[in-house]
Amino acid sequence: MALLVQKFGGTSVGSIERIEAVADIIIRQRQLGHQVVAVVSAMSGETNRLLALAGQVDDRPSTRELDVLVSTGEQVTASLLSMALIRRGYPAVSLLGDQLGMNTDNLFTKARILDIDTRRLRQELQHGRIVIAAGFQGRDSEGNITTLGRGGSDTSAVAIAGALNAEECQIYTDVNGVYSTDPRVEPKARRLTSIGVPAMLEMASLGAKVLHIRAVEAAAQYRVPLRVLSSFDPDQGTLVLSDEDEPMPQQNVSGIAFKREQALIFLNNCDANPATLANILELLAHKGIEVDVINQVNQKVGKVDYAISIPSLELREALAALSNTDQFAGVNITIRDDLAMLSLVGVGIKTNASISSQFFRVFADENIEVFIASSGEIKLSVLIERPYLELAVRALHATFGMADE
Amino acid sequence: MALLVQKFGGTSVGSIERIEAVADIIIRQRQLGHQVVAVVSAMSGETNRLLALAGQVDDRPSTRELDVLVSTGEQVTASLLSMALIRRGYPAVSLLGDQLGMNTDNLFTKARILDIDTRRLRQELQHGRIVIAAGFQGRDSEGNITTLGRGGSDTSAVAIAGALNAEECQIYTDVNGVYSTDPRVEPKARRLTSIGVPAMLEMASLGAKVLHIRAVEAAAQYRVPLRVLSSFDPDQGTLVLSDEDEPMPQQNVSGIAFKREQALIFLNNCDANPATLANILELLAHKGIEVDVINQVNQKVGKVDYAISIPSLELREALAALSNTDQFAGVNITIRDDLAMLSLVGVGIKTNASISSQFFRVFADENIEVFIASSGEIKLSVLIERPYLELAVRALHATFGMADE
Repeated sequence: MALLVQKFGGTSVGSIERIEAVADIIIRQRQLGHQVVAVVSAMSGETNRLLALAGQVDDRPSTRELDVLVSTGEQVTASLLSMALIRRGYPAVSLLGDQLGMNTDNLFTKARILDIDTRRLRQELQHGRIVIAAGFQGRDSEGNITTLGRGGSDTSAVAIAGALNAEECQIYTDVNGVYSTDPRVEPKARRLTSIGVPAMLEMASLGAKVLHIRAVEAAAQYRVPLRVLSSFDPDQGTLVLSDEDEPMPQQNVSGIAFKREQALIFLNNCDANPATLANILELLAHKGIEVDVINQVNQKVGKVDYAISIPSLELREALAALSNTDQFAGVNITIRDDLAMLSLVGVGIKTNASISSQFFRVFADENIEVFIASSGEIKLSVLIERPYLELAVRALHATFGMADE
Repeated sequence: MALLVQKFGGTSVGSIERIEAVADIIIRQRQLGHQVVAVVSAMSGETNRLLALAGQVDDRPSTRELDVLVSTGEQVTASLLSMALIRRGYPAVSLLGDQLGMNTDNLFTKARILDIDTRRLRQELQHGRIVIAAGFQGRDSEGNITTLGRGGSDTSAVAIAGALNAEECQIYTDVNGVYSTDPRVEPKARRLTSIGVPAMLEMASLGAKVLHIRAVEAAAQYRVPLRVLSSFDPDQGTLVLSDEDEPMPQQNVSGIAFKREQALIFLNNCDANPATLANILELLAHKGIEVDVINQVNQKVGKVDYAISIPSLELREALAALSNTDQFAGVNITIRDDLAMLSLVGVGIKTNASISSQFFRVFADENIEVFIASSGEIKLSVLIERPYLELAVRALHATFGMADE
């Protein structure tokens, strides 16, 4: 008998029919003799409906009250799923943030989990009940409702799995695993049977949307084996293994991730002062803009050029932040907003020189201009013109032998 | 500076515009220097929407999970109203059942309040905040969500007012007070400036829908002055006074209540055994059917006739219950389902003989047949044929001088 934590996202519980299907998935594990804690998101569309209500009241509503409002979405799903199990004759109980002992800090709308007091959880499991946990929500030390921000229900599930020392945390979504690249771009994309946490972290951070990066981080932190499956077609999915459990990789390259809408800001002729880059990053961080790649070129004595890659969506705000200060007087700022970022991810990429050379050879062969390149321990990233993205993905996929047999 | 508890029902918070209007009502009291706790219901229609979702899952859903589900309705309203106040620059905080310290038993869907731990409530008020309390909901001793059943938000408001020793509990609804009778039947109906709790209890129990009887009971129990007002047109409303505060009544008659759809069951030729009536009432109570009036006539030696008045809606179930047993073998059961019940309510009715005679004189003068009559300490009730109800209401209204000046 194992203890499983299963997490079901918004599309998996998007209607009463889908909730009934999820009840059947849970019961299948139960019939195999397993204990189950199911963590649920709001029904798809519900969170947006609630946010729209808040938006009618205030375009910058109180974050404390926003958490009180949106947390009802998960509460509704949890009670309905619990009812569906009870109707089928299985004992079930829904638990909300405070009942789960999900203790967080008080950063409303983006709270962090401090610890989980698992007493009630364990008690319900001991009584033979299936626990349906409302994801995304917790309580601060004063008893206020908090929510965990984007990817919050995944984080809830992984944290609960860690606190209960669960056998596995299963993330049910609308795709049936992690692929070598997006199958909509490369139909030959292969589903990975397993991937290590570091590679999964890079894949998530570089544009693969199947798992939120915070959930992968949490899986590593709590040392929880994570499995990504489809609730529409449950099969083996992809297992995300924390380092120590990771088997020797069969091949070095795990996959190709990409972000389609990427921009570059060039700041030419900056003062070669070590504080300059820190100032730039601080200005952007203050606006919540995450920088994907930074390149620095020491152009001539005393002067430096920077190229900064950010999502296109944030370009306008980034430019406003950079021009709203006089510290870049005399700096020539230009942009490109027609780029895409493409990354090869795999353990050992840095130590295997032939991978880098093969990687860049593909762009040369295909006549694709590389604007900036960046390498890390387990990834290689380039920015290229957007129209060449699909071509590059398919060429790399073939070059590194990732195609499905 | 007084402490006021204001309760806003579903139609008063039925849209974002209505919620904004409620924020203005609260602010008006605040500007007069008062502390305010506002208790809110779910937006009108929301509870039914949630119940319909549950109905799709199970036609008899788990009552524990039903309470988890429907309590989100009040949670949504509370957060939105709180946001609206904060946007206007007034500090506000929404509190849910557990945060309010609303401790109940664990009779899900119809829980009773055991006590209110007011620590958090008082602390928020001391910090100068307007408290927006989610009505209708509480927590049992194990931390499960409970709801208080019909009229629950009124009960929440009165109980909070009692626990905080509030100056007044204001019930905002879609009518602007308690009337001498239904203004749709008698346009000359007069709004009462005040009414005592006993008369209000009879009015509520006999068909006046403005206040739920449990709220009036709670007001008497907690000795809280209650005021009924309209959130659409706030004015003085009607003050419901607990006995000791009640001024000498200006006139004996408070008003005329009625129930339009009433039925009579005649059981003729029953055995004259004291247990017979007890058996009948037990059979009906078991089905949750409330009997309005019972008449007993000792017809001949050893035999008794009963006439039992119940709402028409429950007639079919009542007949089924009575015929589902052999203890009424030989009893002749007949019915009338075209009746209405009409009641005169007022303190001192029993001790003022001229009121009774005037009352029955009206029916004689108007040639209206009285089927059964019943009197109590502060009410006189009759059953008459439904088509004569309006005529009788107006004639009584004129006879007892209740018309608006």
